[in-house]
Amino acid sequence: MKQKLQKLKSIKKRRSRKAGAPPGTLEYIGEKKVENIRITYLDYDEKDMVEKQVSKIEESFPFKSTPTVTWINIDGLHDVETIDKLGKEFDLHPLMLEDILHTEQRPKIEDFEKYIFVVLRMLSYNNETQAVESEQLSIVLGPNYVISFQERVGDIFDPIRERIRNSKGRIRKMGPDYLCYSLVDAIVDNYFTILEKVGEKIESMEEELVTEPTENILQQIHSMKREMISLRRSVWPLRELISGLQRNESALIQESTGIYLRDVYDHTIQVIDTVESFRDMVSGMLDIYLSSISNKMNAVMKVLTIIATIFIPLTYIAGIYGMNFENMPELKLWWAYPLVWLVMIAVAAVMLVFFRKKKWL
Amino acid sequence: MKQKLQKLKSIKKRRSRKAGAPPGTLEYIGEKKVENIRITYLDYDEKDMVEKQVSKIEESFPFKSTPTVTWINIDGLHDVETIDKLGKEFDLHPLMLEDILHTEQRPKIEDFEKYIFVVLRMLSYNNETQAVESEQLSIVLGPNYVISFQERVGDIFDPIRERIRNSKGRIRKMGPDYLCYSLVDAIVDNYFTILEKVGEKIESMEEELVTEPTENILQQIHSMKREMISLRRSVWPLRELISGLQRNESALIQESTGIYLRDVYDHTIQVIDTVESFRDMVSGMLDIYLSSISNKMNAVMKVLTIIATIFIPLTYIAGIYGMNFENMPELKLWWAYPLVWLVMIAVAAVMLVFFRKKKWL
Amino acid sequence: MKQKLQKLKSIKKRRSRKAGAPPGTLEYIGEKKVENIRITYLDYDEKDMVEKQVSKIEESFPFKSTPTVTWINIDGLHDVETIDKLGKEFDLHPLMLEDILHTEQRPKIEDFEKYIFVVLRMLSYNNETQAVESEQLSIVLGPNYVISFQERVGDIFDPIRERIRNSKGRIRKMGPDYLCYSLVDAIVDNYFTILEKVGEKIESMEEELVTEPTENILQQIHSMKREMISLRRSVWPLRELISGLQRNESALIQESTGIYLRDVYDHTIQVIDTVESFRDMVSGMLDIYLSSISNKMNAVMKVLTIIATIFIPLTYIAGIYGMNFENMPELKLWWAYPLVWLVMIAVAAVMLVFFRKKKWL
Amino acid sequence: MKQKLQKLKSIKKRRSRKAGAPPGTLEYIGEKKVENIRITYLDYDEKDMVEKQVSKIEESFPFKSTPTVTWINIDGLHDVETIDKLGKEFDLHPLMLEDILHTEQRPKIEDFEKYIFVVLRMLSYNNETQAVESEQLSIVLGPNYVISFQERVGDIFDPIRERIRNSKGRIRKMGPDYLCYSLVDAIVDNYFTILEKVGEKIESMEEELVTEPTENILQQIHSMKREMISLRRSVWPLRELISGLQRNESALIQESTGIYLRDVYDHTIQVIDTVESFRDMVSGMLDIYLSSISNKMNAVMKVLTIIATIFIPLTYIAGIYGMNFENMPELKLWWAYPLVWLVMIAVAAVMLVFFRKKKWL
Amino acid sequence: MKQKLQKLKSIKKRRSRKAGAPPGTLEYIGEKKVENIRITYLDYDEKDMVEKQVSKIEESFPFKSTPTVTWINIDGLHDVETIDKLGKEFDLHPLMLEDILHTEQRPKIEDFEKYIFVVLRMLSYNNETQAVESEQLSIVLGPNYVISFQERVGDIFDPIRERIRNSKGRIRKMGPDYLCYSLVDAIVDNYFTILEKVGEKIESMEEELVTEPTENILQQIHSMKREMISLRRSVWPLRELISGLQRNESALIQESTGIYLRDVYDHTIQVIDTVESFRDMVSGMLDIYLSSISNKMNAVMKVLTIIATIFIPLTYIAGIYGMNFENMPELKLWWAYPLVWLVMIAVAAVMLVFFRKKKWL
Repeated sequence: MKQKLQKLKSIKKRRSRKAGAPPGTLEYIGEKKVENIRITYLDYDEKDMVEKQVSKIEESFPFKSTPTVTWINIDGLHDVETIDKLGKEFDLHPLMLEDILHTEQRPKIEDFEKYIFVVLRMLSYNNETQAVESEQLSIVLGPNYVISFQERVGDIFDPIRERIRNSKGRIRKMGPDYLCYSLVDAIVDNYFTILEKVGEKIESMEEELVTEPTENILQQIHSMKREMISLRRSVWPLRELISGLQRNESALIQESTGIYLRDVYDHTIQVIDTVESFRDMVSGMLDIYLSSISNKMNAVMKVLTIIATIFIPLTYIAGIYGMNFENMPELKLWWAYPLVWLVMIAVAAVMLVFFRKKKWL
Repeated sequence: MKQKLQKLKSIKKRRSRKAGAPPGTLEYIGEKKVENIRITYLDYDEKDMVEKQVSKIEESFPFKSTPTVTWINIDGLHDVETIDKLGKEFDLHPLMLEDILHTEQRPKIEDFEKYIFVVLRMLSYNNETQAVESEQLSIVLGPNYVISFQERVGDIFDPIRERIRNSKGRIRKMGPDYLCYSLVDAIVDNYFTILEKVGEKIESMEEELVTEPTENILQQIHSMKREMISLRRSVWPLRELISGLQRNESALIQESTGIYLRDVYDHTIQVIDTVESFRDMVSGMLDIYLSSISNKMNAVMKVLTIIATIFIPLTYIAGIYGMNFENMPELKLWWAYPLVWLVMIAVAAVMLVFFRKKKWL
Repeated sequence: MKQKLQKLKSIKKRRSRKAGAPPGTLEYIGEKKVENIRITYLDYDEKDMVEKQVSKIEESFPFKSTPTVTWINIDGLHDVETIDKLGKEFDLHPLMLEDILHTEQRPKIEDFEKYIFVVLRMLSYNNETQAVESEQLSIVLGPNYVISFQERVGDIFDPIRERIRNSKGRIRKMGPDYLCYSLVDAIVDNYFTILEKVGEKIESMEEELVTEPTENILQQIHSMKREMISLRRSVWPLRELISGLQRNESALIQESTGIYLRDVYDHTIQVIDTVESFRDMVSGMLDIYLSSISNKMNAVMKVLTIIATIFIPLTYIAGIYGMNFENMPELKLWWAYPLVWLVMIAVAAVMLVFFRKKKWL
Repeated sequence: MKQKLQKLKSIKKRRSRKAGAPPGTLEYIGEKKVENIRITYLDYDEKDMVEKQVSKIEESFPFKSTPTVTWINIDGLHDVETIDKLGKEFDLHPLMLEDILHTEQRPKIEDFEKYIFVVLRMLSYNNETQAVESEQLSIVLGPNYVISFQERVGDIFDPIRERIRNSKGRIRKMGPDYLCYSLVDAIVDNYFTILEKVGEKIESMEEELVTEPTENILQQIHSMKREMISLRRSVWPLRELISGLQRNESALIQESTGIYLRDVYDHTIQVIDTVESFRDMVSGMLDIYLSSISNKMNAVMKVLTIIATIFIPLTYIAGIYGMNFENMPELKLWWAYPLVWLVMIAVAAVMLVFFRKKKWL
Repeated sequence: MKQKLQKLKSIKKRRSRKAGAPPGTLEYIGEKKVENIRITYLDYDEKDMVEKQVSKIEESFPFKSTPTVTWINIDGLHDVETIDKLGKEFDLHPLMLEDILHTEQRPKIEDFEKYIFVVLRMLSYNNETQAVESEQLSIVLGPNYVISFQERVGDIFDPIRERIRNSKGRIRKMGPDYLCYSLVDAIVDNYFTILEKVGEKIESMEEELVTEPTENILQQIHSMKREMISLRRSVWPLRELISGLQRNESALIQESTGIYLRDVYDHTIQVIDTVESFRDMVSGMLDIYLSSISNKMNAVMKVLTIIATIFIPLTYIAGIYGMNFENMPELKLWWAYPLVWLVMIAVAAVMLVFFRKKKWL
């Protein structure tokens, strides 16, 4: 049921603005997922590094013109005014800002020449509802800055921050395109964690299916199927997105980053492969469920048939000698009753042999 | 049943003219959906704006040569003469006029060099029949005019008119291509509203399916499936259409409009995605329905089996001692009757234990 | 059964000539569908028009070299000699003549530079067998002539002849390519008529399926399915064919005809769409049929279960007191018999309540 | 069963050589299908013609350098030495020779510049096993020679030989490319014969299915399905192969042959179309079979239900008056027994009416 | 169950590194499949050949700069340090080294200009679990060296070594690209061996299915289905990989090797074809299983129906004359009892005739 309500809500969210309103009207359509938006910036080059959490977006503007790489991260999207100010300062297109706020975008890449706009879906596994949830991550890659927008505060980028702080790896030596790649790579890597959890759930469902198939499992299989559909929708466009980044000829992406994009592209293919395998597994489960219903019905039928087929003829024999005809000479013979018993036992035995031959017993 | 009649009618409508008649013969093939056709024009540039409802199409002709943007909207298509006059004045191709009048076109775009011709399907949800209905919207985009044709009077473009009147957004500053985009955008936005209603219907069907599956629901699932097919047919060609507009190199579409078309293209993809999800959901419902029939049959079988399997042996025992043999020594023993009762109870108990072991109880 | 025989026959017909015979050997492989072949020619330009039915093909040859448009139509293909003479006069390629005579070609277009060869399938609805029948129409479009070959005499081109005679529409002003387009357009328009009839048949099958599904309907569904397959085969290649005509760069097709071809292309797409919908509808019918079988079995089971479950326990009770034990004190009590009746009624009532709770009644 | 063994064998055959052996190692992997290989050559130009069966391949070598067209045909492939000599003389690539000997190649075309290598599958219908068998035909088309390799002696090319001998058709006037086309054309024409036989078998299966569906037919349907899969594998690559020949720009294929290749391409499409229809028909048969099982079960259930539902209540009534209570006043009434009969008849009648209403009778 | 655990493990392995760690971090993720890694090198040209197993990777470095072909093979990947040293010496890209160590890569080819990186999956058949296992083989093809990485020690390349040692075939005369081709060819050839075993398993399953279908076979069919999915994943990308090698324009692959790649490409197509056939066969088995369940249920039903339908009416007749009415004149007739027997036999006979007519007996 939850699943379904979620679905409908997302349709409402996709309807980007009140029908007929001029395009580029800013309005946040998602739920307010955090109390206060959190703005952090990180400014670095090979030598120095500044990191700060600010309460006003304006504080991060001075870094715009420095040659250093600036990463502004905004968690929480309900403060439309902040987004608006940022958009004005960095000259971001109103339609792009609209896309950032309407958080049911498909993953996509758009090249606005002065910057590249990337939308991704960030997955998380809700242990309570045992469902995969998704959240939008928007990234703007400019000539010397990266701006990232998340719906809520998360820890997925902490290792990247750590690497920048500790100057680990090559991140401090590279430009904003490498930072952008790192963010995308973190998202894709996170998919593996999510898929592992989904895989565990599928596995436990399979076990349940084999040992004790209940009617309830059908519902679960179907909600799993639907989850797979929504996972696919998050993952498939990614392939196109990353190959879009790879093929991009703008000066914003340096050639040396290409090889890293190829790497993340490979991972994306693996994620897609895994999702497709899961889909196949879930479909297979439905087949097993349906044939297990048939098997159960078959077993029920067999029991009924065995019992009925043995006792109906016996009851008939008993019925015969329950008749009240005056002229029934057998009734007077002293050995008739034991004989009837013998006949009955013989009939039952024949039936049992027949069933054993048919492999029903 | 209604669905089916609709289908047939639409085949008749598609048959574009009486077979063999010369192409370009004007004849309206749809139902007369409004009593009188309504002609309105809106002429504006950044500074001024004129809006008027006219009774004769000729009254709108003077605006043709002005440099301002002119939007002529015609609601109702059964007045062939008016369309004909308009076509002559604006030099519209007879085949195009034919397409406007034969209101079962697939969405498409055609470039006639002097103008671009766009056909869309406008959806509406009929609350009475709970079905999605569709209507054709034809748009002619010329160098300084936009002509739109609707089958009936609707309110879907009112917000656009409002924006023009109030000079809200950038619409007054832009050319006719932006107006054309706005019309397409309004249509696509409207799809989300329709899909929401369809989604609600699917949801309520799912709930009914789970709580109380009736034979009737099968019919509903199938009519839903068919509705999905016809929705797809309205929506899929849209993608091609809009990317056709985007790729169009004619001078009629300015580069600055491209970014807005990209936005409406994204929305179209989302609409298609949603329709595809709905299709999957409806298919899933059929599976659930079929396996619920199986489950019910299984339950019926179990009841029959339990009752029969318990009582058939008991009846047999009773039958034995209903026989009239003279030599049945048990009959004379005072404790035989109570013993038979005990045996019967034991047999029943064994059966019940067996069923519980089999998880049938 | 008829369907199947037709199928096999058509395989034989497709085998283009006796295996191993040199290519281009002329031999008519279809049935002789008319007694005598009928040859008519129509020669026209904007001013004059000559129309005549001739008995010898040679009579039409003088028009070959005139600048006027000449349309030679041949109904009936079993007179190989006539075709051969025509081929020699117009320098038609032997393989093409072979294709004209082997009337199970797929729709196709072939550009022989000096002329364009088009093969179409003309459909007709046989009211007797309620099946769609198809016939081959071959068209040769030369620089100033059009030659069309039909398997039998038909009236499908009468409106075109009428238009030429009466100088209605633009046909008299245009070249042979427009005439060729008109023929193709007439064929495609005719498809709508056929599809309407097929649609009506599907509709009546659906109604029968819902009200009174018989085993016979399964056969009908399957033969319908097969009809859809053969319809698709006639229709799908058409799309390619017409876009082949559109893309054709030979001087035989003037640019002004392009817009008409686009129009007939649109109609083809609509025909394909409709055939695909029909296929979906037929598939859906199979699902409904199968689940209606399940439903019926379910209903049968319920009746059996209700009757058996009520009476088996009652019969058991009756059996008890039919036993002949000497020591059965109940038998002597005057109120025992009425009490047994009460117990029986109570048992039956409990069962009925149980069934009502299970919604089986 | 035979089918399956065949399958496995073919996998072994496909494993082109002992794993790890150097590529180009010659070894015949198929069965020895003829006792002795048969070598024939045919050397002709427009005027003269020489035909001879030789015992040593070397005898055919002198024709290599003559300007006449030479056709060397080899039936039987187990004499690796002969193939090897031929390969050395004509400078054939070792990998190609390997492909000739490993007779489970997919149809393909390879351009070795000096010659073109074509692999086809030749079908034959084994009347005994009622199965389609396939054999590899390899053709090498050189500048003035054609070499063909068959697994066994066949008569499929006899008409071509006849045409060369009698100078019938244009074959004597054309080059080796036309001869190669003629061979391919003979193969494709032969497919129609095979398909006709397969079609007859399908037809007879369908008839059996409708009149008397046995469990055995399921096996037949499945082996038919598998036959269709292997037919497809022989036929589908042909399309690519022939269009490969058409597009080939090497000097080995003259332009004038193109039109003949287009013809054989059309035939290939028809073969593919027919195979696809057969697949659809076979799939449809499975549906019919499954629903006929359901129908039969339904019929069985109905009989059981009718009998049980009529007699169980009657038996109950009889049981009532079989009870031995002392106080059963009805037993003493003289009209009670006839009344019970009436009641029983009435109950049975009511049941019968009920069943008729339900359309079970 | 084993299958499933394997699946999950592989997801973990695919997650290329601890999420967020900088790309290019070396860490072996698979199981340690061998105790000690084994390093061997083979250095050869047309005249000389050196082969040695070394304990330290450094010993193989001197060959790097010689013009001879050097083949370094490493079995076992858990010694990250060795891989690292090798990477530094040969200037291999860190991301590539990462791919070598994360042994769940999809088959792929990557061109790093200075060398080409190829990842393949090597299959082996585990006789114990009767499952196909896969292992990663990575190949680096440089200007005068080939480095290959296997997860465990295997004998699949022994014939190649033998050929180099014995100077058999052309391998000693060709460059490293031919060696690389030989490795790929050995892998693909090995696939046929594996497929043969899988084919045998499928065959024995089919036989079991036909002779004695147990519930267990369903599980087997499904695990087979899953095996097919994972086989496909190993095999499908191969086609692209090899055509990637073929199309590669780098100087590393000489033109003369192209023809060998075409040969291995053909084999790959055959492998894919076989896998697809197997998939079809496994799907077919599921159909057979399901319809065999239906058939069995049908058989059970028939037995029940026959027994019940014969004896229920007979028991009813017996019940009639078990009634205790005083006025039952039949009871006193001497011929009544034999008559009842006759009637009973007649009823049974009629029933049997009915069943025979229905073909149930």
